[in-house]
Amino acid sequence: MGILVVGSVALDTVTTPAGTRRDVLGGSATHFSVSASFFTEVRLVAVVGEDFTAEHEKPLRDRGVDLAGLQRVPGRTFRWVGEYGEDFNNPRTLDTQLNVFADFDPVLPPGWDRTPMLFLANIDPELQWRVLDQVDPASLVAADTMNFWIASKPEALRRLLPRVRVLLINDGEIRQLTGRKNIVEAAEAVRDLGTEVVVVKRGEYGVAVFGAGETFAMPAFPLRRVVDPTGAGDTFAGGFLGFLARAGGRAPADIRRAAVAGSVMASYQVEDFSLERLKRLTPEEIRGRYEAFRRLTEVGPYTD
Amino acid sequence: MGILVVGSVALDTVTTPAGTRRDVLGGSATHFSVSASFFTEVRLVAVVGEDFTAEHEKPLRDRGVDLAGLQRVPGRTFRWVGEYGEDFNNPRTLDTQLNVFADFDPVLPPGWDRTPMLFLANIDPELQWRVLDQVDPASLVAADTMNFWIASKPEALRRLLPRVRVLLINDGEIRQLTGRKNIVEAAEAVRDLGTEVVVVKRGEYGVAVFGAGETFAMPAFPLRRVVDPTGAGDTFAGGFLGFLARAGGRAPADIRRAAVAGSVMASYQVEDFSLERLKRLTPEEIRGRYEAFRRLTEVGPYTD
Repeated sequence: MGILVVGSVALDTVTTPAGTRRDVLGGSATHFSVSASFFTEVRLVAVVGEDFTAEHEKPLRDRGVDLAGLQRVPGRTFRWVGEYGEDFNNPRTLDTQLNVFADFDPVLPPGWDRTPMLFLANIDPELQWRVLDQVDPASLVAADTMNFWIASKPEALRRLLPRVRVLLINDGEIRQLTGRKNIVEAAEAVRDLGTEVVVVKRGEYGVAVFGAGETFAMPAFPLRRVVDPTGAGDTFAGGFLGFLARAGGRAPADIRRAAVAGSVMASYQVEDFSLERLKRLTPEEIRGRYEAFRRLTEVGPYTD
Repeated sequence: MGILVVGSVALDTVTTPAGTRRDVLGGSATHFSVSASFFTEVRLVAVVGEDFTAEHEKPLRDRGVDLAGLQRVPGRTFRWVGEYGEDFNNPRTLDTQLNVFADFDPVLPPGWDRTPMLFLANIDPELQWRVLDQVDPASLVAADTMNFWIASKPEALRRLLPRVRVLLINDGEIRQLTGRKNIVEAAEAVRDLGTEVVVVKRGEYGVAVFGAGETFAMPAFPLRRVVDPTGAGDTFAGGFLGFLARAGGRAPADIRRAAVAGSVMASYQVEDFSLERLKRLTPEEIRGRYEAFRRLTEVGPYTD
């Protein structure tokens, strides 16, 4: 079926209790693309600078991601420097250099407007809107956002929601966006704004999916060792939407499977820095952990 | 099979965004007993003062809890005054009066030493130890604790663990007890100290159970409205152990069912103040939400 992603490609310098990696490949569109590529064809729209080398590009090419929409412009690539504490919750951002990303103007290459599925990764909601104007209205549109946009451009974000079928958002953000502390009410408030399916990402606690008459929830996979959680949310999104693209629809049973597939991808992602774990991931491992997830929550019928 | 609980009976004054209730029945042994009574016979060992009336006692009597171990002594009953914010996480304790609970010396009535299952609710680990000396070594022993005892009596607590088959503990506490941030490692550290099954309570995020070669996890039930979370942990424990007592064992499949039964009871408990919701709970509602929990995490096999 195929999926188009618009977002960031970045060079990250990340420190976690497991160590430091400098100028490694990151960015929302990167993590999403590599993850989704295990399930479907992926087209990437993003911008990089002159410092973005063939070596940086290799993990994307190796996964067959179509880079015809990757703009190369004068200047330096978006850079992020962050540090995680022992609890691996929200990282401390030490430095953000938007660089070429500051003037990003997403333009779809010819023919890409007909991609059946679109993921608007976490970028300015006004840019997300401009992308929507370029795609076939029949495309299934999913979007992510972040606290920065919720605080600075809440109206642009709200205006976007009726055009978004699937919103992926973390639990702190959905509370901020809706002003509702209760997660069920918060998801309903988003659905009232026009979004059909709300996927609430809860980090180490898993994921909850709210759709029409359907609620699905799954704990995260209990991992003995987390190395680097950078990109876990986008990796989840890539697995979730990649799986849906491959399944060719969004029937409730497929949405449930897709949420587990997304959780599987995120659980592998955090096992190593940058894209290291996904570079060596196999379809057999995906299937194996999917079944381990099912076993994790498996429980027999009530007995008395 | 039957279960014996040793813990507190209290009069709570609780304020939540839904309102305030003064001097309502609370305490770890109370919440545990009422919850467990839906599954098995319950014997309660605790202490109350002269202000503890027949009216206070009624919810326990109505559920058939055996109160032969409830000591009545001169003085006032243990009182707790607390307040919850909008997020319903850790309450702010405004006042604690131990009163008669300060000199609590748990003594089992004749014949109660042979109760096949024992729950040591959250009391001083030295008192928990003294209770253990009074029961048949063949009893299946489960225990809870709290941050206060982990900080003030860590050695007494550690010494207890080899005699405890099932530890119920929340995620902040198990990190504090073991010094491990990673929950899988923390559970292993407890198991290394001699406890067979570790049940990590994660509040609104659900529960994870770590046993020999078995990990089970379940998200919490997504509730639209939470009124009062006081006693949710003990109510979980009552459902979990009450279910196991009724099932007559601790086979992995029963432990999984028991964790869901505990989650069901806790999910009802928080829907109203004090014991109000459990007072009107029916076995049909328990079965109904148990199946709703199964449906919540139900996902089909992998497809590609």
